[in-house]
Amino acid sequence: MELATLVEKALAGNRRALSRLVTVVETGDALAQRALAQVFPHTGKAHIVGVTGAPGTGKSTLVNQLALHWRQAGRTVAIVAVDPTSPFSGGAILGDRIRMQALGGDPGCYIRSMASRGSLGGLARATGDAIKVLDAAGYDVIIVETVGAGQAEVEITREAHTVIVVEIPGMGDDIQAIKAGILEIADVFVVNKADREGVERTVRQLRMMLHLGAGEHRDGWEPPIVQTVASSGLHIAEAAAAVEQHLAHLQHNNLLRQRESQRLEREWNTILREQALAALHARVPAAEWQQLLQQMLERQIDPYAAAARVLDQVFQPSDIDVV
Amino acid sequence: MELATLVEKALAGNRRALSRLVTVVETGDALAQRALAQVFPHTGKAHIVGVTGAPGTGKSTLVNQLALHWRQAGRTVAIVAVDPTSPFSGGAILGDRIRMQALGGDPGCYIRSMASRGSLGGLARATGDAIKVLDAAGYDVIIVETVGAGQAEVEITREAHTVIVVEIPGMGDDIQAIKAGILEIADVFVVNKADREGVERTVRQLRMMLHLGAGEHRDGWEPPIVQTVASSGLHIAEAAAAVEQHLAHLQHNNLLRQRESQRLEREWNTILREQALAALHARVPAAEWQQLLQQMLERQIDPYAAAARVLDQVFQPSDIDVV
Repeated sequence: MELATLVEKALAGNRRALSRLVTVVETGDALAQRALAQVFPHTGKAHIVGVTGAPGTGKSTLVNQLALHWRQAGRTVAIVAVDPTSPFSGGAILGDRIRMQALGGDPGCYIRSMASRGSLGGLARATGDAIKVLDAAGYDVIIVETVGAGQAEVEITREAHTVIVVEIPGMGDDIQAIKAGILEIADVFVVNKADREGVERTVRQLRMMLHLGAGEHRDGWEPPIVQTVASSGLHIAEAAAAVEQHLAHLQHNNLLRQRESQRLEREWNTILREQALAALHARVPAAEWQQLLQQMLERQIDPYAAAARVLDQVFQPSDIDVV
Repeated sequence: MELATLVEKALAGNRRALSRLVTVVETGDALAQRALAQVFPHTGKAHIVGVTGAPGTGKSTLVNQLALHWRQAGRTVAIVAVDPTSPFSGGAILGDRIRMQALGGDPGCYIRSMASRGSLGGLARATGDAIKVLDAAGYDVIIVETVGAGQAEVEITREAHTVIVVEIPGMGDDIQAIKAGILEIADVFVVNKADREGVERTVRQLRMMLHLGAGEHRDGWEPPIVQTVASSGLHIAEAAAAVEQHLAHLQHNNLLRQRESQRLEREWNTILREQALAALHARVPAAEWQQLLQQMLERQIDPYAAAARVLDQVFQPSDIDVV
């Protein structure tokens, strides 16, 4: 199939074409770039919601319930499940199977798993590009769910407009949100499994942390704390409402455009880093490249100085700031 | 203190100077680069050993016991404990406190914790630069211990000459090594807590996985599987011997230089990516940069095309390969 035809069919709602197009852009190759150029003008309409939290917090169940809630409200939903810890998609496949029971037959819901792609940068790039396709295909809400709660997940989740951090009671003093700068990126806290003992204590700890860091939270938004029992659907409507209120807050304060701008700039810089490196490799003769590497191995030149030697051939030395 | 004096004192064995110098290089700023230029000629002598595995596998205890073992054999040891999941060093501090009891008073052992530095790339860079300082300071063995077993840890651990992956019995079918491409990077498997039930099953599963992937393991080395009980010191000598045999294998087959070359090239490319981006920002006028960002926000140009516009001003268009 021609690329233009594939893009046309995918954006018109053909699910097989959509799946193929996501597979194309995931690769990040030349065809992917041509596809993204065709897709990009149609993006920018979806509400991108990131969901993160430690394993065992019931994230997947929460995501399913939120998706069902929004579907019942007449909105279309795409779910992207990202597992940065695994080159396989074992966990995600299990999640998908459970999902299929509730959401599988619904043409207004699309589910996609993304496994590790060798490097974290590659995964973040592939996830971002898959989101663009789903956005262009017209899904109202795109939920990006990550498996863990480490630095990797933070980097992927921060690409969302609204970030939900999921906690559960009984994690003791070791609230996961303190970790990995998650407090900083959370727009909505969900304390799931709220029928368990210790829920008040967990909510109190989160409040205290939010209070301590209040001055630092961006954009004048105080993250609400919602208690849910996702397995029985309890308070899912409240969690969904908190997410919608955050979007409204962004819109009313002209922050959505600002956040989108930061997102695009980060993405652009990522592309520039990779392509500038490729251009340096193409421009500086391989023999010289090898010679510098040999000198580094012999400890005659350090990596920063070797980098300067390469950059000086392309840029005016005066242009290069020390970074 | 002058930088040259600080470097001189640190390399001469002054521990306070060493700690200050590590702090300097961690920042990655201009002073750090000058420091590394002075340090780099003295590097390349240490055996860098990476240790990774899921939380709860007893990694820290194992690392302590290995350090004690090598100290008793007359070798000096530095430990770098890296926690990519946390901007704080809570876990690492706890580990340090326990360590201090056994190793703290020993001038031949140096312990350093590294917490998250905002981005994963930043943490990997800072860890690599700290290792250079410890290498130049003459430590015979540098053990790099990471907290988790995800993509982040793999990226940090792969900078080692020898990688130990720690498992424990009773993790069921869900052996952590299958995850995150860890099978591919392991040079030595340690099944710790080997007095627990199910140890034979875990060893059998690892053997099977190794057998399945045998053709793929690099450099003709078959990773040994050592069973330890680190808390009581059982079979620590065997684990240490396996690590030393791997180093000998690398040396006898001229692979150490090859691995060092790959390591340096990766590091060099990381620096080039960042500095090329900084040079592009310095060279392309800010107004044009802003205009392209606006056009992306309006969906008039996609990020790949916007990247090409910037790169075309510095590189000949023909030089730019699509990446």
